[in-house]
Amino acid sequence: MEYFFNPKKIVVVGATANPRKFGNVVTSNILSNKERDYIVYLVSLKKQKINGLGTYESILDIPDSIDLAIILVPAPAVEEIIDSCIKKAVKGIIIVSGGFGEINETGKILERRIANKCKQAGIRVIGPNCVGIQNLDIGLNASFILTPPKGKVSFITQSGSFGAAVLYAMNNEHLGCSKFANLGNMIDVSYSEVLDYLNKDPNTDVICMYLESVADGRDFFSSIKQVIPNKPILVLKGGRTVTGMSAASSHTGSLSTNYQLLKSAVDQAGGHMIEYIADYTTALKAFAYFPIPQGNRIGVMTNSGGSSVLFSDQAERFGLNITEFSDELIERIRPHVIPLVKMVNPLDMIAGAREEQYYHVAKAMLESKDIDIVVGCCVITPFLEIQWDEHYRGMIRAWNETGRKKPMIPLLVFADSFPQIHALSEKEKITAFYTPYQAAYACKVLIDRMNYLKKIHEDKK
Amino acid sequence: MEYFFNPKKIVVVGATANPRKFGNVVTSNILSNKERDYIVYLVSLKKQKINGLGTYESILDIPDSIDLAIILVPAPAVEEIIDSCIKKAVKGIIIVSGGFGEINETGKILERRIANKCKQAGIRVIGPNCVGIQNLDIGLNASFILTPPKGKVSFITQSGSFGAAVLYAMNNEHLGCSKFANLGNMIDVSYSEVLDYLNKDPNTDVICMYLESVADGRDFFSSIKQVIPNKPILVLKGGRTVTGMSAASSHTGSLSTNYQLLKSAVDQAGGHMIEYIADYTTALKAFAYFPIPQGNRIGVMTNSGGSSVLFSDQAERFGLNITEFSDELIERIRPHVIPLVKMVNPLDMIAGAREEQYYHVAKAMLESKDIDIVVGCCVITPFLEIQWDEHYRGMIRAWNETGRKKPMIPLLVFADSFPQIHALSEKEKITAFYTPYQAAYACKVLIDRMNYLKKIHEDKK
Repeated sequence: MEYFFNPKKIVVVGATANPRKFGNVVTSNILSNKERDYIVYLVSLKKQKINGLGTYESILDIPDSIDLAIILVPAPAVEEIIDSCIKKAVKGIIIVSGGFGEINETGKILERRIANKCKQAGIRVIGPNCVGIQNLDIGLNASFILTPPKGKVSFITQSGSFGAAVLYAMNNEHLGCSKFANLGNMIDVSYSEVLDYLNKDPNTDVICMYLESVADGRDFFSSIKQVIPNKPILVLKGGRTVTGMSAASSHTGSLSTNYQLLKSAVDQAGGHMIEYIADYTTALKAFAYFPIPQGNRIGVMTNSGGSSVLFSDQAERFGLNITEFSDELIERIRPHVIPLVKMVNPLDMIAGAREEQYYHVAKAMLESKDIDIVVGCCVITPFLEIQWDEHYRGMIRAWNETGRKKPMIPLLVFADSFPQIHALSEKEKITAFYTPYQAAYACKVLIDRMNYLKKIHEDKK
Repeated sequence: MEYFFNPKKIVVVGATANPRKFGNVVTSNILSNKERDYIVYLVSLKKQKINGLGTYESILDIPDSIDLAIILVPAPAVEEIIDSCIKKAVKGIIIVSGGFGEINETGKILERRIANKCKQAGIRVIGPNCVGIQNLDIGLNASFILTPPKGKVSFITQSGSFGAAVLYAMNNEHLGCSKFANLGNMIDVSYSEVLDYLNKDPNTDVICMYLESVADGRDFFSSIKQVIPNKPILVLKGGRTVTGMSAASSHTGSLSTNYQLLKSAVDQAGGHMIEYIADYTTALKAFAYFPIPQGNRIGVMTNSGGSSVLFSDQAERFGLNITEFSDELIERIRPHVIPLVKMVNPLDMIAGAREEQYYHVAKAMLESKDIDIVVGCCVITPFLEIQWDEHYRGMIRAWNETGRKKPMIPLLVFADSFPQIHALSEKEKITAFYTPYQAAYACKVLIDRMNYLKKIHEDKK
């Protein structure tokens, strides 16, 4: 895997100066890294300069050894290139080109023959029919999709373009990426190898996967069982229903895996099976920004009774515990809120609550031995000279002063379009949730992870 | 109701120049309408100028009759003001002030006494403990929350601040508002009167409600049964679960209504019961922007196989019908897509699909007698010189040319943060959905509405 994610010498076969061809997009993406620590060679039948770099007519003409060959020529021309790659003794190959097993039986035969050849030569292959891979830690975008910011999330996806869409969502939520891999038809490298690699990767904190089919269930299960004690894995399965499975089989050409079987395996291994793509982002935000809680007792404060009622509904749906306030906590909170406020959880501080109230109450909860997770619910109130981001600032101040030891989940209802909120999130390296459902789901995945870690800790004893 | 939503002469009692008081916010909001066709009087114990307007010491000093009195003085002072209002023979009263039945038994007794006095005098009352009302059609914001853009959605909410949050979401989705009413403790005016008013209101196309408790279920049920044949009603209930109900009772002081009973009533009347606040926006967008379909056969096109697989999963969850393409439709589509494309529904036009493909295929589906709803699924592809909004432009062009007769649901996966997309939505007066779930849910509510209208049409025969 190291040759794929940390190659020193890369060749792009099928590079072109035509911006309307994928061969140009991949070349440009790889060369866009100005501080690159890898050497790039280009191969093209036509002699040309691409982004200032000259081309070779064949990979065999390159006066250097090659770690990684990325192939973008049309399907019928791929096998010949593979033969040159074998002669050249490259270490790894990514076949981006489509037109193989996902199309018809001829394509299946062709890709099987290529797989066999490479196996005999001891060369690993990713693809065909994929968008490529990325390693943001070395600034390598060996794919034709956008380059996300650097971060701690790694992503394996069976659908390239859906993977690209998730990167948009991550970008929008200030979630950076470490490794990205779209494996396409998987004639050789499969989920397991990438998972094993990410398990040891110090820059990967959380792994998310989109998949439609799992060819070797046993390997897959064994890999996720190895990884999950170290890093959470989120799995989204496309083709859960009959309609979806039929769409999936026409998509990747492989038989869609049974959802219930996969879910049982992921659940049993301690992973997180995701139902909706929006939950994907929510769960990633939860793991990327908040510590795992020590218990399940949730304290809620709000300036909007209706919103905390809706949060309570979602909390019960997920079996969350909105705990009763202890007398000690009530006495700490009381001086900071107006007398009208009822001392119950959720604590409704009423529409006039400001930065000070959010700060003091959040701090009281974060310091209380009777609360494990704090949910700071708020409808932004554009009146009484209250600033748009002040409730959020109050919570963050309390969270920073208490060392960020407990999850402090900001629920800023429908505030996802407010630039002030995004700016503060980015500056303070925190994130907010925008619906009661999202906040409850974030609590749920953190508690699920806590329960899993407690269980394996006890099993070890 | 006309005196509330179309008053000619308004008095604000408890007006103040202090921007940190609600009495100032409401006054400023009412006066912010420069083209107002209503006269505003201000009452304050302290003589002062507020936004250039002088004040009276008592409502009785005003040398004019009054349609609507808005009261913002502290709870203990409210009853005296009510007495003056009765003497003055105002037509309607909104009590914004809190500190009544939602606080304790004394507050309950006080608000009941006020209700009785007004009833005897023949004066209708909204509140107490509310943020106020708005009628955007005459530019009247008689509340302390923000002024949304004008539109065709009307909104009744039991929670003021949650109502404010929904206006943020609507704003962000280019959904304008006609009437907004937060009824607070409802000592007099209740849902039914407002619903009956909105039923006759030509500027209201769709009604959404947030409620925690329904005091008079029979009136409520009878009202929604009257309205729903003319306009769809979306109902979100706070306090569905035990946890939520307990939070709700501490919020508005009223016993939360049983969710199942309410849901049965709303379902039976043909309304839409909403489970998540995000669905609220989705359903509003569906009704505000798209026609009711004539049938349930959905045609899907995509440039991202994975995304249409995920849409298919959500579609099956809602029992939607992704129909088989007819031979006729296939022959119309075939010339416009590359040969690799398989002629099945969802139609995967592969990552290189551009404006032309989206236009021709959408048009073929919109003109086909075998398709009732078109879902234009797309992951925005920032390569091959494809423009960010061109897939969307293609769909819209086809929709416009076919007279917008069928729902054409754009599913632009995770593109909600792209300004180009929002700009195009606004310019073309259309809206997009950003997850497969949202798009499927939009189809579902439109089909539900179609089935309801067909049923009452048949019942009439």
